[in-house]
Amino acid sequence: MSRQASRLDAKKVNSEFLTLTYGALVTQMLRDFENVDDVNKQLERIGYNMGMRLIEDFLARTSAPRCLEMRETADRIQQAFRIYLNVQPTISNWSAASDEFSLLFDTNPLTEFVELPSDLSNLRYSAILSGCIRGALEMVQLEVQSWFVQDQLKGDNVTELRVKFVRRLEEAIPAGED
Amino acid sequence: MSRQASRLDAKKVNSEFLTLTYGALVTQMLRDFENVDDVNKQLERIGYNMGMRLIEDFLARTSAPRCLEMRETADRIQQAFRIYLNVQPTISNWSAASDEFSLLFDTNPLTEFVELPSDLSNLRYSAILSGCIRGALEMVQLEVQSWFVQDQLKGDNVTELRVKFVRRLEEAIPAGED
Repeated sequence: MSRQASRLDAKKVNSEFLTLTYGALVTQMLRDFENVDDVNKQLERIGYNMGMRLIEDFLARTSAPRCLEMRETADRIQQAFRIYLNVQPTISNWSAASDEFSLLFDTNPLTEFVELPSDLSNLRYSAILSGCIRGALEMVQLEVQSWFVQDQLKGDNVTELRVKFVRRLEEAIPAGED
Repeated sequence: MSRQASRLDAKKVNSEFLTLTYGALVTQMLRDFENVDDVNKQLERIGYNMGMRLIEDFLARTSAPRCLEMRETADRIQQAFRIYLNVQPTISNWSAASDEFSLLFDTNPLTEFVELPSDLSNLRYSAILSGCIRGALEMVQLEVQSWFVQDQLKGDNVTELRVKFVRRLEEAIPAGED
C-alpha cells in the first residue's frame, strides 16, 4: 500500500468502511423482516431512493446532456459506477432491439469478504444497486427494469446486472407552457 | 470537480454513497426501535463490531507498533480517520492525567446534507464512530470509553468526540507459555 493512500482526497472514503456499513444494513433488514423476499424489496427500495438523490450529484458533476438512446444511457451508468463505487463494469449482451443490456462486474465493493450462508441463497444482497439505477433514471424520465442475472456471491464467475428499457416518462410541464 | 475524480483508485469509493447508505441504516433503526436511546445503543454496537474488523486491516496497512501511552493511541486514531473516512480530526483537550482527549472534526462525512428533525434531538446520529473506536481498541487490549461532547448536527460549531482510557486488558496467553 503506497503512502499515497493516506493523501486527503476530497469526497473519497475507504471502501471497506462502506462494505461493513452496508453489511450492517443488510443484517438489520434480515432481522426485521420475516422473509428474504421482503428484504430484497426493501433493499431495492432503499437503492431507488438513493438513486433519486445521487442523480443530481451525478448531473452536476458530469454536466452530461440528455441521453437519446440506451447506448448512451449504458455509458452513463458505467461512468456512475466508476465515480461512486470505483468499479468499471463492462457493458455487454445487448438485445437485438438495443433496449436491454448487461453490466458485468469483476468485483463488487459491497460484497468484498462477504459470504452468504446457504439458507440465504435467495437474498439479493446487492439489490441496492439495481434500485439505484432505477431511481436515478426515473428522475431523468426513463423507466427501466433492473435485476441481477448472475452474482459472484452465489458462485457465478461474474456479477451480471441487467437493465431493460421500459418507457420514457412524460415530463411534467408547468401549466401555461408549451 | 477535476477529471482526476474519475481515476480508478483502488479501495476508495465516493463519500456520498457512504453517507446515503449510512442514512438508510439509521432510518431503518429508527423504524425498528421504540425509543431513540435503543437506536443509539444499536448504532454504537454496530460500530463496535465494525471496529473489531477494521483494526486488522489498519494494523496490516500501517504496520503500527503497540501503543505505549494514550498520546500514541490518539495519533493512531487520527490516522485511522484519515485512512477510512478521509477526514483529519484535531487532537485536543487533553486531561491533566493524559488519560483522556478529544477529536475535533470540522466535517463528518456521515452527516453531510443530513438534518435532524427536532424530535430526534437525542439521537446520536454518528454513534457508529464512537463504537468503532471502542471496538478497535479492545482488540488491542485497550478498554476505552468514547462519546460525543459536541455535534455540528445539533448546531455546535464543531463535532467533538471524547476518548477516555479505562484500563489495559489482560492478554489471553496460551496455556503453557510464560
